[in-house]
Amino acid sequence: MVLGELKKIRDSKRVTSKIITLLTDFGYRDAFVGTMKGIILRINPWATIVDISHGIDPGDIQAASFVLAQSFSFYPSGTVHVIVVDPGVGTARKAIAVKTEKALFIAPDNGVLGRLYAAQEKCVVREITDSNLFVHPVSRTFHGRDIFAPVAAHLSVGVPFASLGPEIHDYNRGSSKLPRKKAGTIIGEIIYIDRFGNLISNISQADFSGKEIRSIQIKDIHLDHLSDSYGEKNVGEALAIIGSHGFLEIAVREGNAGVKYGIEIGCEIRVFICR
Amino acid sequence: MVLGELKKIRDSKRVTSKIITLLTDFGYRDAFVGTMKGIILRINPWATIVDISHGIDPGDIQAASFVLAQSFSFYPSGTVHVIVVDPGVGTARKAIAVKTEKALFIAPDNGVLGRLYAAQEKCVVREITDSNLFVHPVSRTFHGRDIFAPVAAHLSVGVPFASLGPEIHDYNRGSSKLPRKKAGTIIGEIIYIDRFGNLISNISQADFSGKEIRSIQIKDIHLDHLSDSYGEKNVGEALAIIGSHGFLEIAVREGNAGVKYGIEIGCEIRVFICR
Amino acid sequence: MVLGELKKIRDSKRVTSKIITLLTDFGYRDAFVGTMKGIILRINPWATIVDISHGIDPGDIQAASFVLAQSFSFYPSGTVHVIVVDPGVGTARKAIAVKTEKALFIAPDNGVLGRLYAAQEKCVVREITDSNLFVHPVSRTFHGRDIFAPVAAHLSVGVPFASLGPEIHDYNRGSSKLPRKKAGTIIGEIIYIDRFGNLISNISQADFSGKEIRSIQIKDIHLDHLSDSYGEKNVGEALAIIGSHGFLEIAVREGNAGVKYGIEIGCEIRVFICR
Repeated sequence: MVLGELKKIRDSKRVTSKIITLLTDFGYRDAFVGTMKGIILRINPWATIVDISHGIDPGDIQAASFVLAQSFSFYPSGTVHVIVVDPGVGTARKAIAVKTEKALFIAPDNGVLGRLYAAQEKCVVREITDSNLFVHPVSRTFHGRDIFAPVAAHLSVGVPFASLGPEIHDYNRGSSKLPRKKAGTIIGEIIYIDRFGNLISNISQADFSGKEIRSIQIKDIHLDHLSDSYGEKNVGEALAIIGSHGFLEIAVREGNAGVKYGIEIGCEIRVFICR
Repeated sequence: MVLGELKKIRDSKRVTSKIITLLTDFGYRDAFVGTMKGIILRINPWATIVDISHGIDPGDIQAASFVLAQSFSFYPSGTVHVIVVDPGVGTARKAIAVKTEKALFIAPDNGVLGRLYAAQEKCVVREITDSNLFVHPVSRTFHGRDIFAPVAAHLSVGVPFASLGPEIHDYNRGSSKLPRKKAGTIIGEIIYIDRFGNLISNISQADFSGKEIRSIQIKDIHLDHLSDSYGEKNVGEALAIIGSHGFLEIAVREGNAGVKYGIEIGCEIRVFICR
Repeated sequence: MVLGELKKIRDSKRVTSKIITLLTDFGYRDAFVGTMKGIILRINPWATIVDISHGIDPGDIQAASFVLAQSFSFYPSGTVHVIVVDPGVGTARKAIAVKTEKALFIAPDNGVLGRLYAAQEKCVVREITDSNLFVHPVSRTFHGRDIFAPVAAHLSVGVPFASLGPEIHDYNRGSSKLPRKKAGTIIGEIIYIDRFGNLISNISQADFSGKEIRSIQIKDIHLDHLSDSYGEKNVGEALAIIGSHGFLEIAVREGNAGVKYGIEIGCEIRVFICR
């Protein structure tokens, strides 16, 4: 890449974005991610490529949706987010692009953007059909390389969102469960467990705002109040806290709650509130 | 780094490249990779450093060669690729630089570039001997830091390839096995297993181009045709497909073929073709 | 990010640095790291963010201190290093910023900078108290996002170090053990084991400089000299060597010494020297 060419690209009016994030289940050993980055840099050598995560478990759409929801809002306006957790690659599932007020998202239409749709007031969703933007020949097994990466890179150099393909309304809104409420009880479940073994539920602070908590119960753990910080308990003790993600979380101070209590995704959690 | 200095470097005619990729077996915990990046940025603060992978199994030259072959051709012209999978560090093995029509490669001369040599019409190979380009004192255990990273960075700021050291012809061409063909049968083997458990063989589409496939057999799995996509089978079923890498691959739809069938690297695979 | 804005930021006199490194125990699956990068890029879209490592074991302050010590000195002047291994998040432990002659460091005051203090002649340490630099509301569980990342980004765009908060002198100097010496013996211990199973001790070359080594003993392994390179032994044989980090290391050529000999962090190692 000769500097003069870089300069020309940079100075072009078509350059309107530079940050492209990647969130995949491609892991950290194979060539998948490195290949996508090459494609992006060939189209936009000026791009700042940021890895959100490539450690999503293979095909774990729910985890990817959660990780995206935790991170995207902290990025500058105009960021292009690419999400490739795509167990249905090669089937009839669509490739889509989504525009919100601040950002663009490129992903398979399999529900991985479910938490994005839930969080944003306005999402315009388009099916990606303009094959001029693809890498050819398009494989049937690696659309991260052949469709998602090049489309994101083209958007980042000014290709208009509206040109990608037709707007659609029957997109996959995902299947994230909301907690149920009945007579003094909020019944939720564990939806994500992080590296530290913290058990993150689908119960948000808003679900019991203004109400006094009587107790919190998960499996045979009973906690009588929400803690303000991990440090409030002794090392090794369990606590309930509203985590940095805004959801009710069960943690063990300087320990791993998931391992200690043998709790997995889907485990029920109950919050008893005063009426 | 004061911006004025950056600007001077950027505007200098010596800056002719900016992308440097890293492919190593250094993993994601130790200081190895972070140290190499520091060296590169000290020499070329304008570099765009891209991680291809650091998750190659320790010393797995074959895997690194395969991952490189999958990714390098997607990078812009002028990219400098650094490959450090170097079980022989501190022995007499040479450090080499390779120039192809489009890119530069820095690596130990241990066969890790074998698939590159096989894929490129013209490779000029030089032994790296100009110790002015090294970080001193040069250790006997970490040439990624002391030789490979600084040489790559110097190339990226315009040090001429020809100045690195003498051209050599007796470089290590690697030992990747080609499939054998006999009377209606192509006999290959599994050369790489990816994160999804897909079993990638050394049989390429060209090996049976124009021929009709009668069946494909690996261990006690028999498949009667090549599938066009994972979606063609039911979830959990095995299939044979030409993967995005161009090789015959055995996969399980939304499953892990390697784990399901207990198949490892080196396992024989046979394709029976109509004569 | 419109290019004109980028240009303005770049040309501003306030931009004095561009490299920000990250060293955490956040792993490679969750949203923690991606979130920190978003925060940084929102404040300084011109930043070059470099991952040192996110694979530190949860809460392993000693390992993080070692990895930092191996890598920071190779970075350009003005680099801002962010270290978030923070088991005490939400307790009274301080957030600190440290200035050395060449670089800036942002971390919790829990000893993770112990090896930095030991290596640098002059460190100015400030408690970070200027909450104008934080992301609000500040959570009690994720100061990487709310304090450490934004403070680092603000430093990189020219916020003066002195404005972060008051200088302190009672900071946590860490607890890295030095080897003991008695009558012809240096008694150290294993302080880090790398991906390759190399056993790194706290005995540095300086500890026996000028002295002839009679033998080296760890567990039931006895070695009669320091090797110059891994290649000096046969594949699978143990050796002692001064590693690229400057410490005495026990390795197995093309093998894993930690696994082969069942040796863990804290294991005693003795060097017998001629008096």
